[in-house]
Amino acid sequence: MDTLKELYFEDLYPGMTFTSPRTYKVTAEEIKQFAEQYDPQPFHLDEAAGESSFFKGLAASGWLTAAIVMRLRVESIKIAGGIIGAGVEEMRWLLPVRPDDVLRTESELLSTRHSQSRPTFGIVRSRTTVYNQREEVVMRSIVNFLAPLRGAK
Amino acid sequence: MDTLKELYFEDLYPGMTFTSPRTYKVTAEEIKQFAEQYDPQPFHLDEAAGESSFFKGLAASGWLTAAIVMRLRVESIKIAGGIIGAGVEEMRWLLPVRPDDVLRTESELLSTRHSQSRPTFGIVRSRTTVYNQREEVVMRSIVNFLAPLRGAK
Repeated sequence: MDTLKELYFEDLYPGMTFTSPRTYKVTAEEIKQFAEQYDPQPFHLDEAAGESSFFKGLAASGWLTAAIVMRLRVESIKIAGGIIGAGVEEMRWLLPVRPDDVLRTESELLSTRHSQSRPTFGIVRSRTTVYNQREEVVMRSIVNFLAPLRGAK
Repeated sequence: MDTLKELYFEDLYPGMTFTSPRTYKVTAEEIKQFAEQYDPQPFHLDEAAGESSFFKGLAASGWLTAAIVMRLRVESIKIAGGIIGAGVEEMRWLLPVRPDDVLRTESELLSTRHSQSRPTFGIVRSRTTVYNQREEVVMRSIVNFLAPLRGAK
């Protein structure tokens, strides 16, 4: 589909899918930098500490993976005015993300409804599945976002 | 409570609370840097673009707020072996986070149960409330994490 066109609420329907237009390679450097700032735990900071941990190796913070997924979703889903998050319904980290893993996302719209509190917006529920280079699912999430009504411009 | 002691599953009970030992000041620079890398949308990147957006001003990416909350939780809750996320049940961004906002967290344990798939761990459900310097709630989340059984050391 044409991902360059800005989409309004009226353009969106359950079952609509969005694939990330590129992949994202996660490096050991990015894993450690993010961890230093936001999740300073040994298994996210150091290979040797990772080996002797639950993760059996250096692993990305789940919040780094979530941030990368937002990047890929911003590049995949072009909502008029931008993607304004309206809450996470569920997020699952299914496999560790390792240095040099290459991630991509597939998002599917689950439902759309008018917002009662913001009458110029609709609320869209989306499920995103995150794959690595071996086609393993590393993360899954269900996130709501706002989409403006076309007439409300 | 003594937040330096490493906690095992047996030490944790519903109603137990953890308060961040410090606050975290969010700067305009951090908001823009995070956005450039993970959420490059105008209202997270530029003051003027923010003014004319839904947010009526520069606002932090919700995923930056979530990352900062992880940082404060890592400093608040000392689980033996580290906090290993077992999924997000819910996350709500209730108010925009602005440059120079000062955040703190309060976490409460909601439930604890043994893990069926990982018999040496328990699963702990926690609710975290994030306040700004005006005591407004900017984010709320319910996150599960693993805690090792003491006997399984």
